[in-house]
Amino acid sequence: MSLVIVGTFNLDTIETPQERRERIVGGSGTYCCLAASFFTAPGIVGVVGEDFPKDTLELFKAKGIDTEGLLVKPGKTFFWEGRYEDDPNKRTTIATEVNVLKSFRPQLPDHYRGADILFLANIDPELQEDILAQVNNPRLVAMDTMNYWIQTRAASLLNVLNKVDVFFANDEEVRMLTDELNLITAGKRLLEKGPSLVVIKKGEHGALLLSKDFVFVAPAYPSETVLDPTGAGDSFGGGFLGYLDNVDSYAEGDIRKAAVYGSVLASFTIEKFGIDRLESLSSDEIENRFAEFQKLVSF
Amino acid sequence: MSLVIVGTFNLDTIETPQERRERIVGGSGTYCCLAASFFTAPGIVGVVGEDFPKDTLELFKAKGIDTEGLLVKPGKTFFWEGRYEDDPNKRTTIATEVNVLKSFRPQLPDHYRGADILFLANIDPELQEDILAQVNNPRLVAMDTMNYWIQTRAASLLNVLNKVDVFFANDEEVRMLTDELNLITAGKRLLEKGPSLVVIKKGEHGALLLSKDFVFVAPAYPSETVLDPTGAGDSFGGGFLGYLDNVDSYAEGDIRKAAVYGSVLASFTIEKFGIDRLESLSSDEIENRFAEFQKLVSF
Repeated sequence: MSLVIVGTFNLDTIETPQERRERIVGGSGTYCCLAASFFTAPGIVGVVGEDFPKDTLELFKAKGIDTEGLLVKPGKTFFWEGRYEDDPNKRTTIATEVNVLKSFRPQLPDHYRGADILFLANIDPELQEDILAQVNNPRLVAMDTMNYWIQTRAASLLNVLNKVDVFFANDEEVRMLTDELNLITAGKRLLEKGPSLVVIKKGEHGALLLSKDFVFVAPAYPSETVLDPTGAGDSFGGGFLGYLDNVDSYAEGDIRKAAVYGSVLASFTIEKFGIDRLESLSSDEIENRFAEFQKLVSF
Repeated sequence: MSLVIVGTFNLDTIETPQERRERIVGGSGTYCCLAASFFTAPGIVGVVGEDFPKDTLELFKAKGIDTEGLLVKPGKTFFWEGRYEDDPNKRTTIATEVNVLKSFRPQLPDHYRGADILFLANIDPELQEDILAQVNNPRLVAMDTMNYWIQTRAASLLNVLNKVDVFFANDEEVRMLTDELNLITAGKRLLEKGPSLVVIKKGEHGALLLSKDFVFVAPAYPSETVLDPTGAGDSFGGGFLGYLDNVDSYAEGDIRKAAVYGSVLASFTIEKFGIDRLESLSSDEIENRFAEFQKLVSF
């Protein structure tokens, strides 16, 4: 087991100015493992209820994803309902039902414990810490989070942050965590809190990577069709870590390429609702878009 | 005369959360010609009052700028007062005094009329059109504008837009002009209105170039010190067109490089108040930062 991903596996109701979809499959773990599956065979950790579609579990397996760490428990799957405004960067949470996630105390399958890379995708920071303690000497630990945990569990979150190598966050979260508007200054502050790499996701403006040694600006794909922005950040993380796991290197050059693959995966995810685009995506399409990214920034 | 720049030459009072400076030299023409002067010897068109510092006129000449088209008239120089919030992208206009600009009817010096490149920097679109009519067969015409002209002179502005090759605007202006949030879609709409290249300036997020044939994403320099954002966009335009004038080519590869030089010049301007940084800047510093931009995006 080389990449283990812990995250949420949801049913989401999503409304955009154009369309509404009820109870479609979503969640940080879902987007992340599907994106990573184009590069490696990740194992996943999480919980779903009996209403989680069997087809999706089959899809995971067909994509080479190890689902042994995904529990199916009596009750209902974690549910999130959100609405996007005309500006796809602005979203409002309408409802959250924690359901089976409430009593979730993850136990890693034995063969997950030797993971090279552990990704603590967006989930309660206390669960993130719990999982982290169950993995023996991972070579790379990454985490993501969301504004909700920054507002309600800041201490736990900072505690996990101190133990990880890579921190993924969007621009709003970075500013909220550091109380600093300038993203470069904010990123440097976060580097002082533990991680050796901070990845700031800026949606349509791409991503900014900061380490002690370098700054890298990854462009976003110039998308005209943003059908559903849900899962873009999680797909970025999945593509990023999936690529690193595949090349089995954390050298600067590979980290830069990983960020572009992350951006490529995110750019596909938002083209359709939920996981629809990741489901139909091919490796050739990924490589072609990677080449387009190269053209986008070359001078 | 290969590059002619028409714009405003101001005295600005600028307040940031840290500092306030009274009646310092500014204006679209000022920033633009200083930025361009590192690559070529531009001619400038505009008007100042008797209170415009003689030292600045001497500085222009020392930088190789042809000031024959800059009239000095009895009365006071165009004055602008603005305040920046903690977020340097948010600024409020406190006062505007048109002064000598009110009755300005530009007459181009004869030797300006054969200009290869004409830059209609931010100024009343009716003046832009007036100047445009006085240049014989320029090879490239570029224009910039601001929200004020979009709100008050939309018809005149669209009229000029239809006659230019390159349109510079910031993201807010592009959205305002097209009533479209997606910048790629908005940029494509603007391409239908006349220009063959649209340059969308996004401040800390860099710039987006759109033509029929390509999209280019120019990064912004990861600046921690933004002392005074005034003139960043005008410096971008000056660096961009100065470079193109210098290489005497409008090939795609040169346009991409020009955008990076534009971004380089803007990144220096914001490091100090007003034109202070452009005044002390050297060509070596420009080339070094250009090389840094290359590293910033390479993967």
